[in-house]
Amino acid sequence: MTSQSVGTVETRHLDLPEPVRLDCGRELAGVRVAYETYGTLSPARDNVILVCHALSGDAHAAGLSESPAEASTRDGFAAEARDGAAGRALGWWDGMIGPGKAFDTDEFFVVSTNVLGGCKGTTGPSSIDPATGAPYGADFPVVTVADMVRTQRAFLAELGIERLAAVAGGSLGGMQALEWAVLYPDRVDAVVAIASTHALHPQGVAWNSIARDAIMRDPAWQEGRYYGTGRAPEAGMGVARMVGHITYLSAVALEDKFARRLQFADDIRYTITEPEFEIESYLRHQAGSFVRRFDANTYLYLSRALTYFDLARQHGGSLATALKDVSARTLLIAFSSDWLYPPVASTQIEDALRALDKPVEYHLIEAPYGHDCFLLEEARQIPIIRRFLAEGGAA
Amino acid sequence: MTSQSVGTVETRHLDLPEPVRLDCGRELAGVRVAYETYGTLSPARDNVILVCHALSGDAHAAGLSESPAEASTRDGFAAEARDGAAGRALGWWDGMIGPGKAFDTDEFFVVSTNVLGGCKGTTGPSSIDPATGAPYGADFPVVTVADMVRTQRAFLAELGIERLAAVAGGSLGGMQALEWAVLYPDRVDAVVAIASTHALHPQGVAWNSIARDAIMRDPAWQEGRYYGTGRAPEAGMGVARMVGHITYLSAVALEDKFARRLQFADDIRYTITEPEFEIESYLRHQAGSFVRRFDANTYLYLSRALTYFDLARQHGGSLATALKDVSARTLLIAFSSDWLYPPVASTQIEDALRALDKPVEYHLIEAPYGHDCFLLEEARQIPIIRRFLAEGGAA
Repeated sequence: MTSQSVGTVETRHLDLPEPVRLDCGRELAGVRVAYETYGTLSPARDNVILVCHALSGDAHAAGLSESPAEASTRDGFAAEARDGAAGRALGWWDGMIGPGKAFDTDEFFVVSTNVLGGCKGTTGPSSIDPATGAPYGADFPVVTVADMVRTQRAFLAELGIERLAAVAGGSLGGMQALEWAVLYPDRVDAVVAIASTHALHPQGVAWNSIARDAIMRDPAWQEGRYYGTGRAPEAGMGVARMVGHITYLSAVALEDKFARRLQFADDIRYTITEPEFEIESYLRHQAGSFVRRFDANTYLYLSRALTYFDLARQHGGSLATALKDVSARTLLIAFSSDWLYPPVASTQIEDALRALDKPVEYHLIEAPYGHDCFLLEEARQIPIIRRFLAEGGAA
Repeated sequence: MTSQSVGTVETRHLDLPEPVRLDCGRELAGVRVAYETYGTLSPARDNVILVCHALSGDAHAAGLSESPAEASTRDGFAAEARDGAAGRALGWWDGMIGPGKAFDTDEFFVVSTNVLGGCKGTTGPSSIDPATGAPYGADFPVVTVADMVRTQRAFLAELGIERLAAVAGGSLGGMQALEWAVLYPDRVDAVVAIASTHALHPQGVAWNSIARDAIMRDPAWQEGRYYGTGRAPEAGMGVARMVGHITYLSAVALEDKFARRLQFADDIRYTITEPEFEIESYLRHQAGSFVRRFDANTYLYLSRALTYFDLARQHGGSLATALKDVSARTLLIAFSSDWLYPPVASTQIEDALRALDKPVEYHLIEAPYGHDCFLLEEARQIPIIRRFLAEGGAA
């Protein structure tokens, strides 16, 4: 823990008084939101930054969690880069949130929530359905990124917050940030969307589809009703996670980190079942640690939401129409080696906003680590984000 | 069937009289080889081209199979491009093998075998172990590309063929072609290695590892002893196939073919379990048709063999050492959008051969379809291969 840390934090929970109306037509009552806050809310309540997490994240974005037993939500390379000691539950964006950091808690009141559909304290498929007293499972409504944003909006209203100085996130978190600017144009001053997109490309849709199929084809999934059965689709979710993990990294990063090094000595052992290459062992380790900390149904629901997200489709097929009422200044950051959320996705948003005379800036960071750059390349993002937020005027 | 077809062909079988000695140290007795031949063997037996198939191929490389019920082994885009009518069992390289084609059966005697470890007539894990009277299953020895080549060598000797005018293949087939030139430098006049490599890069190793894990994590796999149980790891192999399929295609090809088009009308249906995007439906279809025609253990064994293949490792860590005795002329073809067997893999072989003053030529074909180009871009390969073979002198 450095002097720049927000310190020890506690994830809190808030129950929304009203049902959330969902895109699918259903209403979800009794929604609980898990959240953390860092920094101090200004008397004018005008210094709020909402940070939004990605597929496997949670509300614990910065600092050290109270319970040292809580597993870190930082994944893969990112986890290795930051979490040296076992049991340290450092927030997934700790390098970005804190005094003097990108989201400067000396200036801003940073709020982080677990998304609707999540499994880390906010209502999701593993939560108890008040109508039945049993976990929702597959009866949980299919939620969208817009539904996540509506839930955040209702949650912030309970905190007395009506306006955001900024909303920020990477990947699925960036989708939420963009959706905020579209759904609530009068309530968002600035958007920071990192390694994100207005609509995932078909190969990304395919990877997500394969990952979900891996879970749903596991007999232990039991049509989503595995809670309390003593079985969970860990085998399938492990495969899903391995697929995801490789899509988050670049081929170059894998070459640099693993090459074709073998597990044992310098020769093969002629085995089908055992890991033989270091990369094989690494993937199994990643799969094993992920299934212990994440709910398979939440993976399905959030994966589905991020494939559905499509600002143009949601607005008559036109990205320009989708963005026409945006009043927020927009900062887009992409990474050269990110093939899951490639730079072109960000430049399409930049072009659309620019054509509408909206304030937007786009930064391409040359870095080799693929989509994971958004968690790894913090040092190069921090000055960009700090300057962008400062230009919005002091909070 | 065009006038250029080799016509109707029959897959035949030959039992090797001697056991095959394997890299793992075991010997495999009673090996049967499934094969087809096209064209006429010259009296001097000097016009033989051996073609080697890829992961999911078989001996049926050209013409129409005798049995119309035999499912085509052409996959995905390639299948669609060639097999219009249901039930037509056109060989997987029919566009390349025949009168006037790349491997011209007016001139050459083309031989195609199913690889050792296969499931299409050559001895593999689904074959009966003569020692037990039951299928080998997971007791089948772990085979290598070199073992496949040794088996082909022993098979050709039974046909009275001691020398190859050329050995050719794409992907895993290209690995076999390269291995032939290394293992039997005095018996190979020319190598045609298409969309192949001397060692799969770590991301490719990872994809193969994930695919194998998907099969082995399926409870129906039963440690490889699923034969006769009434269950097979179809769920897991479907996932494996979907992973493989996306790695065979480029992101651009998926964008061109599917974009983000939905299955039904122009809106989403809010479903987790049903395919929603066309690409999702396509992947499930591909998975379903593959599991009906392919053995999961063979998938495991061939996938393992192609990840093991590493000419440098097999020769003290040096590609130059591996290639130093090669006497064959070598033709390398790669495709610009192939990210599974990228062009750099071919140029590394080119550079190593050139440094050794070996005759080699390399062609990069600009085409958007990814690794599948080796089956799709036949028209552009044919003149290159015809000229290369002609320069070797008339058979």
